[in-house]
This record gives sequence, structure tokens and C-alpha cells, in this order.
Amino acid sequence: MKRNVLIIGAGGVAQVVAHKCAQNNDVLGDIHIASRTLSKCEAILESVREKGAMKQEGVLAAHQVDAMDSAAVAALIRETGAEIVINVGSAFVNMTVLDACLETGAAYIDTAIHEDPAKICETPPWYGNYEWKKRDLCTGKGVTAILGAGFDPGVVNAYARFAIDMMDEVKSIDIVDINAGSHGRYFATNFDPEINFREFTGTVYYWEDGQWKETSMFASGRDWDLPVVGTQRAYQSGHDEVHSLATNYPQADVRFWMGFGEHYINVFTVLKNLGLLSEQPVTTAEGLEVVPLKVVKAVLPDPSSLAPDYTGKTCIGDLVKGVKDGEEFEVFVYNVADHEAAYEEVGSQGISYTAGVPPVAAAMLVATGEWDAKTMRNVEELDPKPFFTLLDRLGLPTRMRIGGLDGEDRAWNA
Amino acid sequence: MKRNVLIIGAGGVAQVVAHKCAQNNDVLGDIHIASRTLSKCEAILESVREKGAMKQEGVLAAHQVDAMDSAAVAALIRETGAEIVINVGSAFVNMTVLDACLETGAAYIDTAIHEDPAKICETPPWYGNYEWKKRDLCTGKGVTAILGAGFDPGVVNAYARFAIDMMDEVKSIDIVDINAGSHGRYFATNFDPEINFREFTGTVYYWEDGQWKETSMFASGRDWDLPVVGTQRAYQSGHDEVHSLATNYPQADVRFWMGFGEHYINVFTVLKNLGLLSEQPVTTAEGLEVVPLKVVKAVLPDPSSLAPDYTGKTCIGDLVKGVKDGEEFEVFVYNVADHEAAYEEVGSQGISYTAGVPPVAAAMLVATGEWDAKTMRNVEELDPKPFFTLLDRLGLPTRMRIGGLDGEDRAWNA
Repeated sequence: MKRNVLIIGAGGVAQVVAHKCAQNNDVLGDIHIASRTLSKCEAILESVREKGAMKQEGVLAAHQVDAMDSAAVAALIRETGAEIVINVGSAFVNMTVLDACLETGAAYIDTAIHEDPAKICETPPWYGNYEWKKRDLCTGKGVTAILGAGFDPGVVNAYARFAIDMMDEVKSIDIVDINAGSHGRYFATNFDPEINFREFTGTVYYWEDGQWKETSMFASGRDWDLPVVGTQRAYQSGHDEVHSLATNYPQADVRFWMGFGEHYINVFTVLKNLGLLSEQPVTTAEGLEVVPLKVVKAVLPDPSSLAPDYTGKTCIGDLVKGVKDGEEFEVFVYNVADHEAAYEEVGSQGISYTAGVPPVAAAMLVATGEWDAKTMRNVEELDPKPFFTLLDRLGLPTRMRIGGLDGEDRAWNA
Repeated sequence: MKRNVLIIGAGGVAQVVAHKCAQNNDVLGDIHIASRTLSKCEAILESVREKGAMKQEGVLAAHQVDAMDSAAVAALIRETGAEIVINVGSAFVNMTVLDACLETGAAYIDTAIHEDPAKICETPPWYGNYEWKKRDLCTGKGVTAILGAGFDPGVVNAYARFAIDMMDEVKSIDIVDINAGSHGRYFATNFDPEINFREFTGTVYYWEDGQWKETSMFASGRDWDLPVVGTQRAYQSGHDEVHSLATNYPQADVRFWMGFGEHYINVFTVLKNLGLLSEQPVTTAEGLEVVPLKVVKAVLPDPSSLAPDYTGKTCIGDLVKGVKDGEEFEVFVYNVADHEAAYEEVGSQGISYTAGVPPVAAAMLVATGEWDAKTMRNVEELDPKPFFTLLDRLGLPTRMRIGGLDGEDRAWNA
């Protein structure tokens, strides 16, 4: 049993995490939220109070911390008595926050791989470059670290594990992420543009025939006919979960597909070709040194500002193929989320909602001991069933279609 | 008779001006070139020397000056003994350079209207906001100031005057500017992106039925079947010469059309809609204040770097309609220029060439006295014939089609 949560970060996902922690503070205990900017934490607390989200009376507090400073994070963990840290800060702080957990013994949960600000798209498997190097240390100290416990990576890793557990042999895992919602703006990214675009500017790695293969963004597209959202075009993209699933299931092809409309691709292509998505500084005629990508971020809408007007639904799932009882077997495991319902409940849009609810479910499973692994784990290495049970209750129900996309639709446990 | 030229500016157009002044230093005397960055002036002198452009031995010198500092420009005029100043610096320095001419008595020639860096697209007629307010002062002091003596504005104003002189009554002037050349880059502007985009982000003013009307960029397009370059789509754009021609010929409709391909329009539209063409500063997440347009400028190719690979031709002309001897009369007066030929002669692309040759022709007419008006003049207020004679010789021959675009093709003086 572990109690008391420290949330690192104060963006759109952190807001969802805070609401969901508050709604479950009977299990989780005290809720602390910390980021570089105290006022952003305070705004989230205000939102939690407005919705009356606290299940029972308890601690709900904001803190200022520089998450790049491991010692400061460790001091805050000790000060707050947090036994669980949910890191939904920038992708650049994973290692310093994980180090603070190793130092203090707190459990660590994140939702995306560590990135070095100066590098785009390192060599596969991505987790091998930073996180997995600390696995033995976690084991030695008995520290629980759950990597990539958002939706994708996270829930989709559990979908893969669940599907694979149904078969005798797995042959392929195709993860499909479609946002069929509309924010009504000319152009916007659904989370931090800086991280969002970094995902798309590098090599797209995927795993096929037992080896890493490469393509580039928007080079490989395919129409998918999915539940609720209908036929949508998605493109092979680089994504964290490909790197752990390919390592854990090397016999399976592992690909990730993300849906994009023509307008998004056009804007992205123009910005990329002009050099405006570069993380390398340029110098203006006036001698000012500036990173173009940071200026693009500054002119784009703040992702959290999209929530009030966001309509439509997301569909994210895994099409997993293999063999069962000597026959070809296929299952699509998925969730459909609704932007308006998410805003109504926690004041965020659906993309933040799907990313922010799962790490809270993971934290609850750590709190109850079911996922308190005392070592480092990717989500597919943990039992998916208690996770699905919690997600059903927390607002992200798991459904499936045995036989593939055309199969009969039912709940995962029906 | 006036002698000795001071060129203000050291961009692509200044390079052409320097070469052409050197080629005609028997008429023009000493050639001085000054800008904020001395090394850019020196690079131009080096290019002039490489091509052996000086017609006869004489002075060719570089100077550093801040053209926003009127007293510094006046001091340089006195120091160099220049009686003619060709201002091809940034659009923001017209008034300070003109003031220096008023102070010293030197003749002033520019190629584009004055702009205030903080304002985009002021109210029509544009010349009324700055330049024309100084006309009485020019007259009083007997200072010659020739406004907008590039190609457009400039040569096209002379084309209009020439066509109107052929008729009894003018009804409409449509100026069409087509660059059918190719620079082989993903995207580039042909001159300073900051000035280039400012042209397109504001209201498009045109003159019809005796009044100012408004449209917006790319809202009004039309295919034009032109000599040499063939059928090209052009869009109504805001341009300086509309403002003086409409004032001098209020009975005529005056419109300006600029050719753009779909790719250019797409890139422009994306940048504009995202707010990346804004001259208003934004603040990055790191607290750096930066003007998006200046960052776009920094990532785009330097216009002067396009010259070596530029191929194809430009066609710029005036379709002027009216009445002659009681019958409808129509004439298209135009020039075709070649990017490769321009590079071969002066090391610049065709757009800089067409902009840079005419002010040298104007300077030569001021030197010989033919255009030494002792007051402020737009080009249509001066005799076009000696201008055309010089342009024929300097590399921008004037042709015409009486009867309109389908008419028989011949030289202006054939």
C-alpha cells in the first residue's frame, strides 16, 4: 500500500490527472501538484475545487519546483510525504524526476519517453537510450517505475497484452489513433506543439520481420474503418509503445498509425519545409537568436484553450492478429472518448482526458499493491485486467471486436 | 547638369544600381554606395570590379551610414559631393534620406513608398501620408525628388503616361506583373521577405468609378494571356503606383495585378493564418520577445542567393484602355526580362534587375537635366520618351501591342 500523490507538471494532462486524483483521494490520499509556474498549479486546484471533485476532505496543495533539478524534486517528495509521483511534465524531465524517486523510494509513473531537448528521434528502441538503463537500479532499490502509462503509450500497451493473452501466437500489432474531433480553429496541436511536432519531424521507426524498419512521416498512409468515427486516413508515425512492444514481442510486427486530415498535413509540410519546425536556433537580421519551433509554439493556440469548443470523438485501439487453436485470430481492442463529455467533467479536451486518466488508474493500482512491481515496467508487462476495470469506472471503457474491425462489438469483459 | 551618385542600400537592387551606375560613370561621375553594413557595400564593389563594369576610370567607394539618421546622410552627401542620391535602402528610410537631400540640395530618387515599421497598409493615397507632404518644400528649395522610379512603380507609370498620351481619353489602367521564372527552391521571396509580405497582408486598395475600393489579397484573380510568358493567373494586389496614377488620372480605373502560383498562395496563406507574418511581437514560453515575421525572414533563402539558379522570364506591362478619335482604343505597353541574362550581366536575378536599372536611367536623366524637375514628381509626371530610350539601351526595352494583348507586337518607337 502506497499513499499520497505528487503530480509533476501543470498543463492540460496534469489538469485531468489532478481532477481524477481528487475524485479518488480515498484511495490516493493527499494530492500535491508542482510545476515551474506556481500560478498554473493554482489554476488547476481552482478548477478541481469548482467542480467539487474531491471525493472526501483531504490535502490538495500547489508547489513550485524546477523538475530539471533532481534534488529539489526529492526534497519536495520528502516534504509532501508522497509515495507516488505522477510525472506529466515536459518530456525533458523524466530522468531527473525518476532519479528523485530512486533517491526517495517513491513510485514513479510517466506517460511519455524521456527526450533530450537537443536531439530529435534517437535510435530504437527509444526506451533503451534513457529509461531502461535505470531498470537494474529500480530492481536493486525495490522502486516501482511504470513507464508510458498514458493512453498511447499506456492503455494501448495493455490492449496489446490483453489481445495477446487471448491467443497462442501473436503476428502483428497495429495501433490506430484517430481524433475525429474538431476544435474550430484554423490550426492547433492537441498538446504542446514543441513535443507534438518533434514526434513528426524525425525518422518513423517500426518493427517488421524481426527488425527495425524506417519510413518518414506521411509517407505510409491507410484508410481505417473504425467504430463510431467511421473511415479515417491514418499514417505510420513514430511512437513510444512501438519500441517496448517490439522488444517484448519480437515475433510480432508492430506499427503505429495516427490520423491526420489533409489540412493538418499541408500546414505541417509548409512549416517543416520552410525550416520553422527546427529546434536549431536561427539569427534574425537584427541579431536575435531564436529557435523557430518556439516561435511557432508561441503563435499557435494554447492546447488547453481548445477545450471549451471541442466537439466530436476519438477512437484509439489495437488491431492484433495471431493464431489461436491453430486458426488465424484477430481482435480489435479500443476505446471511444468524447471531447464535450471530457470538458464537462474535468474542464479539458478529449486528448488530454485520454492521456490523463490512465496514469491515475496506474497510481491507484500502485496504491492498492496490484501494480506495485518494485522494479521498472512498461504497461504490457503488467496485468491489464485490473487496469481495464478501473478505466471502465474512471471514464475510458474498453471495448473489443473479436474477428477484427468487422467483428461483433462488445465490452472487454462481456 | 548634376554629377556624382550616392547609392543608399546594399541589397540585391543596390547591386544592380551599382553595376549600372558604373557602366555609365561617364554621365554619372563618382559612384558611392552606403549602408548600415559596410561589408555588404564592399561585396558589391567587388562584384562591380569583377565584371569590369566601370565605363571609364573613376571613383567607386563604400561607406557606412545609418540611413535613419538624416544628419549622417546629409554629412555623407556633403563629404562625397554627390548631387544625386539613389535610395534603394529599406522602405523605412525614405523620409530621413529625403530630408538629407532637402538639407543639401541633392536630387532624390527612390523606388518604393515610405513605410512606418509599426504600420501595415495605411490609407490611400499612400504617397499622401509621407512623400507628398514634402512637395512644397522641394519646390521651394528647387530640389528634384523622383518618387517610385523602379519598375513597378516606375517604368509602369511611364508606360501609363505613354499610352495615355496616345489617346484622347483614358478609361482604365491595368498593370500586370508576372514572374514566370523559377528559383528551384521550396519557397522564397524575390526581395526582402519582410517588405514582400507586408505588401500582401493589408487591404488591397484600387481605384474604380472615381473612388477608392477595397478587396483583400488573392480574393480577385484573373488569367492573363501575355507575350512570351503565356497565360498566367494574377491577383489584384496593393501597389504604390495605383495611388499616384489614381490621383493624376482620376477619370481612369486603376488596378494592379500580380502573378502567383498555387504553391506560393498556399504557403503565404498558411503563414498568414498562423500569425507568422505578423509584425507584432509574441513572447515564447521562455520569455523571449520576438517578431514572427522576422523569424520567417531568417529561415527563408536570402533573395540574393537565388540569382545563380534562377531561370525563366518576367513580363510586366500596362493594359491601358480609352478613346482615340471617337473610337475605343487599347494598348499593352510592356517589357520582358530574363533572369539568366541579368545574372550574367550584373550577378543578380531578374526581379532585382528590373527594379535596379530604372532608377539609374532616372539618375542619368537628372544628370543631363531632362528630368531635373526642381520639385517632387511621380514618374507619370515626367516625359516617358527619353526614359524609354535609355531603358532600351540599359537592358529593359519597351515593346507594345496596339489593339491590346492580341495586337501586333512592336517596339514603342517603331
